[in-house]
Amino acid sequence: MPPTEASAEARVRILGIDPGSTVTGFGVLERAGQGLRHVAHGTLRPPRHASLSERLAKLQAALLELIATHCPDVAVVERVFVAASPRAALVLGHARGVALAVVGSAGLPLHEYTPSQIKLAVTGSGCADKRQVQAMVQRLLALAAPPPFDAADALAAALYHGHAGSLVGLLAGVPPRVRERRGMRGPCFVVRRQ
Amino acid sequence: MPPTEASAEARVRILGIDPGSTVTGFGVLERAGQGLRHVAHGTLRPPRHASLSERLAKLQAALLELIATHCPDVAVVERVFVAASPRAALVLGHARGVALAVVGSAGLPLHEYTPSQIKLAVTGSGCADKRQVQAMVQRLLALAAPPPFDAADALAAALYHGHAGSLVGLLAGVPPRVRERRGMRGPCFVVRRQ
Repeated sequence: MPPTEASAEARVRILGIDPGSTVTGFGVLERAGQGLRHVAHGTLRPPRHASLSERLAKLQAALLELIATHCPDVAVVERVFVAASPRAALVLGHARGVALAVVGSAGLPLHEYTPSQIKLAVTGSGCADKRQVQAMVQRLLALAAPPPFDAADALAAALYHGHAGSLVGLLAGVPPRVRERRGMRGPCFVVRRQ
Repeated sequence: MPPTEASAEARVRILGIDPGSTVTGFGVLERAGQGLRHVAHGTLRPPRHASLSERLAKLQAALLELIATHCPDVAVVERVFVAASPRAALVLGHARGVALAVVGSAGLPLHEYTPSQIKLAVTGSGCADKRQVQAMVQRLLALAAPPPFDAADALAAALYHGHAGSLVGLLAGVPPRVRERRGMRGPCFVVRRQ
């Protein structure tokens, strides 16, 4: 049966991006009705030996290709409030600026959430570390292997954005002892597997 | 007489860029033999009311158009060492990242110089303020009107890069009293008018 117009409209592809100076993580989820489906995730690593402008150009090209491949409807990034130092902020700003410009040039609406909002919702703790986020993202999306940290952060941002329509089920699959060992108090929302 | 291959090779177009969160300055100079010729300068001001990603996308598109119009051979930006705060560095980093990615994607070699290198060479003082840089850039390039501050900084960076082949003459045109009043000790290089 071909999808009706209503169901086609309900499908929303969410691209999460975690820009970084050496590694940029991404994650693509699809929300259809009450469900959230994992589509893809990965990391973009421009060659280390290249100059800064070449690396940023590679990042720009890779993000454009990603958008052409997965045709997202919206993009999500973490809102940045502070950085360790002006130097670190400048370096992060370079990659983040490229990512935001690509999102803008593709005409995608951009949503920003604070890291603590995302962590709190995904793990139950706004102070969760990278391993906790990684473990919960793997569990919530039923991934066969843990995603790389940067991809996990991007998926977590996409999960947070996509949570509104799909708040039941998967956490039950995480044994309580595993959750305690990993410092998880449980996510504020959970995802229905499709 | 058509240009010989040798003279065509000697022409180098230099694009100076001064990226900023609200205003990005640019300046294009052409070096031919011993001379440096002003080609264009201006400022890029993405609409203030737009979102950050839209503004960065506009900046990206404007820089691409600039490169397509003026066909520079190299690009020059100021090297950034410090910023007032992590927040300011992040904001600057966004625009700078977009500019560097565009330069890299156009395949242009990028050169970076410190602000004090550029100011010292153009005005004779590494601590020159914006008005002093503006006045000397106007004088050195024989511009009818003072360029906007951001464009003056971009032109100064391009001047610094292009100085190697053309170090005679124009400073003589600046009356000593004007130079003293403006705190100019004179540039370390001067430009031959064409």
